[in-house]
Amino acid sequence: MRTFNITAPDRAILSKISHHIDNLTKPKGSLGMLEDLALQISLVQQTLTPELRNPHNILFAADHGILDEGVSVSPREVTWQQLAHFSRGGAGINFLCEQNGFKLVLVDAGVDFDIPEGHGIIDRKIARGTANFLKGPAMTLDQWDECIERGAQTVDEVYRTGCNIVSFGEMGSGNTSPSSVWMHLLTGIPMENCIGAGAGLDNSGVRHKLDVLKRAVAAYSGGSSDRERLAWFGGFELAMAVGGMLRAAELGMLIIVDGFIMTNCILAASRFNPEILNYAIFGHQGDEAGHRYLLEHLGARPLLHLSMRLGEGSGAVCSYPIIQSAVNMIRNMDTFDDVDVTKYFD
Amino acid sequence: MRTFNITAPDRAILSKISHHIDNLTKPKGSLGMLEDLALQISLVQQTLTPELRNPHNILFAADHGILDEGVSVSPREVTWQQLAHFSRGGAGINFLCEQNGFKLVLVDAGVDFDIPEGHGIIDRKIARGTANFLKGPAMTLDQWDECIERGAQTVDEVYRTGCNIVSFGEMGSGNTSPSSVWMHLLTGIPMENCIGAGAGLDNSGVRHKLDVLKRAVAAYSGGSSDRERLAWFGGFELAMAVGGMLRAAELGMLIIVDGFIMTNCILAASRFNPEILNYAIFGHQGDEAGHRYLLEHLGARPLLHLSMRLGEGSGAVCSYPIIQSAVNMIRNMDTFDDVDVTKYFD
Repeated sequence: MRTFNITAPDRAILSKISHHIDNLTKPKGSLGMLEDLALQISLVQQTLTPELRNPHNILFAADHGILDEGVSVSPREVTWQQLAHFSRGGAGINFLCEQNGFKLVLVDAGVDFDIPEGHGIIDRKIARGTANFLKGPAMTLDQWDECIERGAQTVDEVYRTGCNIVSFGEMGSGNTSPSSVWMHLLTGIPMENCIGAGAGLDNSGVRHKLDVLKRAVAAYSGGSSDRERLAWFGGFELAMAVGGMLRAAELGMLIIVDGFIMTNCILAASRFNPEILNYAIFGHQGDEAGHRYLLEHLGARPLLHLSMRLGEGSGAVCSYPIIQSAVNMIRNMDTFDDVDVTKYFD
Repeated sequence: MRTFNITAPDRAILSKISHHIDNLTKPKGSLGMLEDLALQISLVQQTLTPELRNPHNILFAADHGILDEGVSVSPREVTWQQLAHFSRGGAGINFLCEQNGFKLVLVDAGVDFDIPEGHGIIDRKIARGTANFLKGPAMTLDQWDECIERGAQTVDEVYRTGCNIVSFGEMGSGNTSPSSVWMHLLTGIPMENCIGAGAGLDNSGVRHKLDVLKRAVAAYSGGSSDRERLAWFGGFELAMAVGGMLRAAELGMLIIVDGFIMTNCILAASRFNPEILNYAIFGHQGDEAGHRYLLEHLGARPLLHLSMRLGEGSGAVCSYPIIQSAVNMIRNMDTFDDVDVTKYFD
């Protein structure tokens, strides 16, 4: 697997940024998470006047062999149908991208359908869906490495447009299952707390999903490295997102993390390069049951809690105006040195 | 006091709206609060294609006699200094209004300073600050009624520009104190749970504030009506916001409720006309300690939790892009009838 050179931002500028934020014309700390966010962004960009340029939402789509075990209410054909739908507009992610000025990049990472050309869907297909990880590895290690490579390549293309902030989304019927296994394996949190209803399972459906995933983990016969475990249970779209995130951080871009599935991808990415978390902004805490525990594990505090569970990057893109507000705060607010207002706190 | 004719939106259209939202191309309920919000807005506007026009943030400023008791770290002159600052730009509310397309309306409701003309600050001054409510009523009943009238008048002016969504903000050193007393009196929640640090009191400052407010309530010698109690402990900017909110709902406008102080104003308004809550969107749950209890009392679920406590309408204006997302969702997403995507849930 390709390696990435991700370094923590130089903290020499930190006290200068903090001092500036504390000196803006407001009670200290009174803009709450906007202040934390402005600090993080300024640190990543090493400036008191950060800017957000050409935001992109990269959406990877793929199918999953584990779907054969009845772990989702969403049938396989919904993956390609929705991908086609995104390309025409009118889906959830489309109105959010349009509202917030995001370019939507659609990538076929491994959809079980021959996507015709001419619809703006980038062909990075590894195979027509992963294998069923209850019966063996979902993908080979070579496929894993290729996913990392293609995800990184996609980010390179976006970066060349001048983009410095990127979110990742996904579409793949059944893909909360590989995500839950990743979470369980990487955090040690019991599987019961790593799963949820996905696109709409009822209680007995969730119990069945839990049983399938526990049996799959028990039957695991691969190696002990993260790479081997992630590949065995992974999805092509998830692995490409991991590669994309790693490359984005290597390039110094900000990464907006979407919901449950993408949070698992940044968790996985952080196992290879822990410093990636300096570049991550958590957009939304979703309703998928395990997400809360996962965010706690990462010590992450997401910007929004809107009970969304759509995927596609929707939670990340929806949070973007808050990130803009943080940047506007540090760029546009006066300091007490600029104006004639009594400073009434230390 | 003037009466307002506020009626609940006609619910005949409700099932049609619900059906439409459920039929958008997403798992049912998967856009969470955006769906709830779209339902509310569509119901208020009685249409499946709601729109948001000319948003305004009306900011009422006034001073408070209770400040003499040492209940705030914010000195009196900060009220007029900040009001002047808002008029020049560069304050917190300015960048938020600019980002989100809000017109900022500045109203002198009762600032203890002769605000010069020509700065775009509307003169609705009742007096140069309220009286100290530890020693008697903060304002007379006539002043209360005049505040309601002037608040309503301000909304009328905004409404005539075509505006159909309005938020209210405030500036007034010491004004969490009247807000906390209102909350205590109207909800019955113990005063301990109605107060917080305001602009930055330390623990002993909060204890002193609690003591002052408890003594003020114990010494109350007015009548038992809401109007009498609210006037006794109120602020001019708070009373004008109550009047503004009541008139906005009467006109069928959407009201975005800001943080702790404005939530107390909508609570007060709801005592006169309970149906006003149909028109209220709660923008932000702030860090002021009592706000959580207050929102629970109202059964309100705010859009944002960003630990902000600035006032000025900042939390309301910051939440506006989420409200836009809800409107864009219902207006722009395809339904399953429009596109060839398998509907996989009931």
